[in-house]
Amino acid sequence: MRAVDIIRAKRDGEVLTVAAIDAMVRGVLDGSWADYQTSALLMAIVLRGMTPDETAALTDAMVRSGRRVDLSALPGTKVGKHSTGGVGDKVSIVLAPLVAACGVVMPKMSGRGLGHTGGTLDKLESIPGFRVDLDEARFLEVLRTAGCALIGQTADVAPADKVLYALRDVTATVESIPLISASIMSKKLAEGSQALVLDVKCGRGAFMKTRSDALALAQSLVAIGGARGVPTEAVVTGMDRPLGRAVGNALEIRECLETLAGQGPADLVEVVETIGGRVLRLAGVATSADDARRQLRNAIRTGAGRDRFRAMVAAQGGAVAVIDDPARLPASAVVETLSAAADGTVSDIDAALVGQAAVLLGAGREKKGDPVDHAAGIVVRATVGSTVRRGDPLLDLHGPDAARIAAARAVVAAAVVIGGVVDATPLIRAHVDASGGVSTP
Amino acid sequence: MRAVDIIRAKRDGEVLTVAAIDAMVRGVLDGSWADYQTSALLMAIVLRGMTPDETAALTDAMVRSGRRVDLSALPGTKVGKHSTGGVGDKVSIVLAPLVAACGVVMPKMSGRGLGHTGGTLDKLESIPGFRVDLDEARFLEVLRTAGCALIGQTADVAPADKVLYALRDVTATVESIPLISASIMSKKLAEGSQALVLDVKCGRGAFMKTRSDALALAQSLVAIGGARGVPTEAVVTGMDRPLGRAVGNALEIRECLETLAGQGPADLVEVVETIGGRVLRLAGVATSADDARRQLRNAIRTGAGRDRFRAMVAAQGGAVAVIDDPARLPASAVVETLSAAADGTVSDIDAALVGQAAVLLGAGREKKGDPVDHAAGIVVRATVGSTVRRGDPLLDLHGPDAARIAAARAVVAAAVVIGGVVDATPLIRAHVDASGGVSTP
Repeated sequence: MRAVDIIRAKRDGEVLTVAAIDAMVRGVLDGSWADYQTSALLMAIVLRGMTPDETAALTDAMVRSGRRVDLSALPGTKVGKHSTGGVGDKVSIVLAPLVAACGVVMPKMSGRGLGHTGGTLDKLESIPGFRVDLDEARFLEVLRTAGCALIGQTADVAPADKVLYALRDVTATVESIPLISASIMSKKLAEGSQALVLDVKCGRGAFMKTRSDALALAQSLVAIGGARGVPTEAVVTGMDRPLGRAVGNALEIRECLETLAGQGPADLVEVVETIGGRVLRLAGVATSADDARRQLRNAIRTGAGRDRFRAMVAAQGGAVAVIDDPARLPASAVVETLSAAADGTVSDIDAALVGQAAVLLGAGREKKGDPVDHAAGIVVRATVGSTVRRGDPLLDLHGPDAARIAAARAVVAAAVVIGGVVDATPLIRAHVDASGGVSTP
Repeated sequence: MRAVDIIRAKRDGEVLTVAAIDAMVRGVLDGSWADYQTSALLMAIVLRGMTPDETAALTDAMVRSGRRVDLSALPGTKVGKHSTGGVGDKVSIVLAPLVAACGVVMPKMSGRGLGHTGGTLDKLESIPGFRVDLDEARFLEVLRTAGCALIGQTADVAPADKVLYALRDVTATVESIPLISASIMSKKLAEGSQALVLDVKCGRGAFMKTRSDALALAQSLVAIGGARGVPTEAVVTGMDRPLGRAVGNALEIRECLETLAGQGPADLVEVVETIGGRVLRLAGVATSADDARRQLRNAIRTGAGRDRFRAMVAAQGGAVAVIDDPARLPASAVVETLSAAADGTVSDIDAALVGQAAVLLGAGREKKGDPVDHAAGIVVRATVGSTVRRGDPLLDLHGPDAARIAAARAVVAAAVVIGGVVDATPLIRAHVDASGGVSTP
């Protein structure tokens, strides 16, 4: 099957066969497809789409391009979790130890943060000594010890996805629900979990801007999981404002510790309990949403979640001392407060602008391979809905020097709106159950 | 302007600016665009299209990527001609000397034949010694001497088109009216003519299968010429059957000589007179279609056209002896006749199959750079509409050995239909005048 014929078929809107999709994925890895042929096919896929069967076949081929982690030796039900990425999204770091405390094993491989949304690995690496580059044996060992592990993707997880993603990034072929779905699900299926819960973010701070796009992606992801025998649920959650108060690596770890200690911000707790509830029920550990919430809250109240976090940090080489004394986390040289210019109600905080400002402070990457300042970031002090007087603090900027602070300040100043109407759309926008059924809470 | 942003704009259906199109063409040549970015943009163009203004801008940028021939030192009106390619299409070889004899200078650069349609250069090179690789000075010299010249494209004509075409060929991005238009017109405008007449072939033996596709291409080509101050007309002509009786390089030269001697097949003569009539009127040399036809027939009758052909062959290094004695042209070792299996009327001869059979005989190329057998080919003996008896000759296969003849025979046998209804669609399907107006003869 020649590359040019496969490209032509998709260009003309035909459905690609499993053999054609396999040939492409194999060709991408063995070099028999030239990059310019792959990118032409990717563009044809972006514009012509793929059926659910084609998307599942692409996912399969990418999983098979590498190694699937074998978690069968591990006791307990293994449930994976993935978020499509948002500003201040630290859900996994709180969720994994909490569900582990409730008896569910959560193995999680993550990517690095890119752009304004930040990455779980960068956040964890702000804990001195914390290692994310574990091999499979060590990954299993951490899971056995702590019940959860948060590591980077090993090189042999879906290598075809890495090649395709690098190409998509420079050819404007990222924005395609089938390609995004296959990319996400190939990595999650390779992770070896028995079930999956996905947090599909939606809003101006997320990749998917609208509820309908996010829902379409959520349904596509759930369908692939189901087709591959891995029950998958998705929750569409709002990402118009930052999640929680902290944006930035060490700042978010501090907020995670507060949340595990029962002092978390309401929106973060709501997402953790919603996703966690799905995880516990999919694993058969909870019988209802109420039962799940009770168990998760119990894991916070008893400190069992915090203990699991401590065990994971220790097993991954991190300094556990930060757990009892967050002041040991990296801190910025300069902290400046942005104050309210007028009296009124904070009606909006734009997540995208906050994310961009955090990147300017050094908390995130403009491009792959850029270093990250673990201390830098933003802490929201006046959340949406709160009433402020002129001069009251709105948010704190943490940065290495005055120049970066000034650059971030110019961006973030436009993010906060005082006066006007507060958008009351619920944070949890929709559930997609394992059979693809959509419900709105 | 980043490549990825330009690709994204076209992907999303936006109209590209002149600056964006210039950046792409420049990037393709200077390497700042990677091939995989170019092919992604090409696929987006295939699926999203281009406006006439974008197509003209792309044409411009490709012309400017190389050198435009300067014919201003040459007296007379210079009119170019181009065909989109067909089986047995030898029109240029007859037309150029005829219009030259009528006082119009016809400078023509051609490409090599590829696939089943054959190429003007290969046909001419079957004349021993005939050289097509002339530089610009020699090109002008031949034009001054003979009034016409048929040469290969020099390396500095639209070099961006060469890069783009090579990429399109392997990425299934050939089939796009804007891309085809810009490719053709960039080369024709670089040729330096003051006006152009285009023969857009239409039918199963041509690239454009339907009249409406051919007409759309014709109108696109005419629009670009007009936008660039080069009055351009197009004629849509049928290519369901081979044009003339001969298909194959030396065999076609022989038929050209017969045509210049007034013994040409009716269909070839009709296309030559139609295109030639447009050339003479565009050049202001003829006042009406009738006047033009009279002049062209006169050039045949007096031998003035044949004299121009002789002068061109001599000036391009070819053996003029073949003109008086076509038996000096290369001849095949084996000639086999395909005979009628039944009595009846020849109702159809499939040009595409005849073209494929000719390639199997060695007359054409499967891929770029393949050698060509100048002697090989096919001569139709029973044209469409003629009545045959069982055993009567249908066509002759000329080839180097029995194996190739057998291979070609298997293909060509299916090309000839005896019995059934003769398709009476006129050969000249439509005219597109220089203002874009369409008329049906």
